[in-house]
Amino acid sequence: MREVAIVAAGMSRFGELWDLSLRDLFATAALEAMEKAGADHIDALYVGNMSAGKFVGQEHLGPLMAEAIGLSGVAAGRVESACASGGLALRAGFAEVASGMSDLVLAAGVEKMTDGADVTEVLATAADQELEAYHGVTFPGLYAMIARAHMQAFGTTEEDLAWVSVKNHRHGALNPKAQFRREIKVEDVLRSALVAEPLRLLHCSPVSDGAAAVLLCPLDQARKYTDRPVKLLASGVATSSMSLAGRADPAFLDAVQRSAERAYKMAGIGPGDVQVAEVHDCFAIAEICCLEALGLVERGKGNQAARSGMTALGGRIPVNTSGGLKSKGHPVGATGIAQAIEIFEQLRDEAGERQVQKARIGLAQNMGGSGASSVTHILGRV
Amino acid sequence: MREVAIVAAGMSRFGELWDLSLRDLFATAALEAMEKAGADHIDALYVGNMSAGKFVGQEHLGPLMAEAIGLSGVAAGRVESACASGGLALRAGFAEVASGMSDLVLAAGVEKMTDGADVTEVLATAADQELEAYHGVTFPGLYAMIARAHMQAFGTTEEDLAWVSVKNHRHGALNPKAQFRREIKVEDVLRSALVAEPLRLLHCSPVSDGAAAVLLCPLDQARKYTDRPVKLLASGVATSSMSLAGRADPAFLDAVQRSAERAYKMAGIGPGDVQVAEVHDCFAIAEICCLEALGLVERGKGNQAARSGMTALGGRIPVNTSGGLKSKGHPVGATGIAQAIEIFEQLRDEAGERQVQKARIGLAQNMGGSGASSVTHILGRV
Repeated sequence: MREVAIVAAGMSRFGELWDLSLRDLFATAALEAMEKAGADHIDALYVGNMSAGKFVGQEHLGPLMAEAIGLSGVAAGRVESACASGGLALRAGFAEVASGMSDLVLAAGVEKMTDGADVTEVLATAADQELEAYHGVTFPGLYAMIARAHMQAFGTTEEDLAWVSVKNHRHGALNPKAQFRREIKVEDVLRSALVAEPLRLLHCSPVSDGAAAVLLCPLDQARKYTDRPVKLLASGVATSSMSLAGRADPAFLDAVQRSAERAYKMAGIGPGDVQVAEVHDCFAIAEICCLEALGLVERGKGNQAARSGMTALGGRIPVNTSGGLKSKGHPVGATGIAQAIEIFEQLRDEAGERQVQKARIGLAQNMGGSGASSVTHILGRV
Repeated sequence: MREVAIVAAGMSRFGELWDLSLRDLFATAALEAMEKAGADHIDALYVGNMSAGKFVGQEHLGPLMAEAIGLSGVAAGRVESACASGGLALRAGFAEVASGMSDLVLAAGVEKMTDGADVTEVLATAADQELEAYHGVTFPGLYAMIARAHMQAFGTTEEDLAWVSVKNHRHGALNPKAQFRREIKVEDVLRSALVAEPLRLLHCSPVSDGAAAVLLCPLDQARKYTDRPVKLLASGVATSSMSLAGRADPAFLDAVQRSAERAYKMAGIGPGDVQVAEVHDCFAIAEICCLEALGLVERGKGNQAARSGMTALGGRIPVNTSGGLKSKGHPVGATGIAQAIEIFEQLRDEAGERQVQKARIGLAQNMGGSGASSVTHILGRV
């Protein structure tokens, strides 16, 4: 297998971007990545996208997006794993380059969520339609059940959940591309409207438009495009029961654990080697459960990680320095690539006020649905 | 790059299958492939699907389908390139095994089209929403324009188009899994209702439910699963302008040509070496244009291929021995895998009454939209 590097990244702002269409968003991110690398061609394009068919009536994003950046003709396709579509696009690009089928591959993600579709109904297609969505449960409802299970098992409180949001907004305030660049307090979270008890508005990530792209090539060709390539050490993909009711323990994200185990094994490291991480905080409880499943904290102790400062900038292992899905925004198909970009920039000392000192190994973990799929990537300084 | 083989295949019937759901269809095909190989596990699953989100309200098919075959936990994801989604799933599986990331990979395709959705509106999402679909054009309309352009350039007639349907129904009558197992005559086609002038009902492939799956592994491990592996010699993916109006010549499928050139180059062969082919005949005119773009006939001569018997069973190069999309059926996400299965069976001498004698190299070409994307695979006897 050929070793693979990320050599450049591009990203649109995340937010309610009324002036940018699906293809505008994609082109913004993709062209930024290509310009930074000085690349005027690519061999293949993988676009992560959850549901442009339902959001804006557009499937078939491979040729559409190739054309949007003036590269009609190139090999291109879309990959989808609900909110983990971006992570899966990175995996597909990784395999494409590692196999030798292509040398220069753009792995991107995009979602246009604010064009008028019923977002709750569209997102519900990431749940089991026959066993869950049809019966009326929505994603805030599913994650509320996960939160209740964690509260009952480990005494987790609404305030513990609030600390995750407070930390991520503190980080996001330092990120120029974040949707919400303002700090919030624990009291703000606890006073915000109930969405699905015990989850309040400020425990939930927003609805967002956005795109992100990274350029991949064989490690031994990386210096053509940058003096600071970052190596893709490993990729792990895993699944679990589609419906929450089908899992042994709703408070434990077994797909996240399996995706991480596969990635750790491929990279030849353990969770103790990870120095900075982006994890999938679509709801505050998700960050807590992901930290536990990734082995970054002990089982049942995830609820203390944000509160104690351990996962804040300056803490033992900063998590979601980008602001996470909560503050940076969550254009679902773009999220997995945006996470990888934050780690890429951290490992290149480009994260500005969010910089984690001397980090050499970082992890990006992207999840679909209520945890039915997970993709974990591990990146390392060269 | 590791050499990759197909070791087993499974396929549901194609048709209006009211008694089988999306996951039932998938499980039928996937379990048949695994049982034939004697495999009780896989390392990864790629599901090709165009639009289950719009057809049946279900995205996130990776974990759903892994669970449907009792393999929840396995790495799984969906790939999409409209009607070329199956072809793209095969490409993704090929890269996954070739890279060394996985050893045993199921590449599958599935579509459930007859569950009540507005099929014409769903399929239109494979066209350019902003430049085409929004303004009311449908796929029969787009292919009617392609047919008109071919008629004007080369004198192609409605009767030439009818011969494609007659040939493919003759082949499909021999295929136990085909949707329409009856022969038709040229007069039947010319007397059938106009859909979009000059295309009549019997020039058009049907709306279908179905699934297909193939099992891939490194060639040097193939004998564990079968005594007759078939080698994946090459994969070529290409795109063109999403909208028909954006192409230099609407009667020439440039993405098909590019995908074939890439595949021929990778396999180290030319079109003259291909002995049996499945090509994307979503409409009769599409088969004619694909034959020309693949280099299997001279430009402008595709209209004589079916009429002359050249592409019929017993002819110089039999095309769509399965019955093609026209007679076998066209569950869009499954089609690309089903095409590969026909070639796989031909190269194993398993095609029964449809067997092409002594074929050693076969080609499967799968197309998305009005030709905005194309995936060509070349398979060879070991």
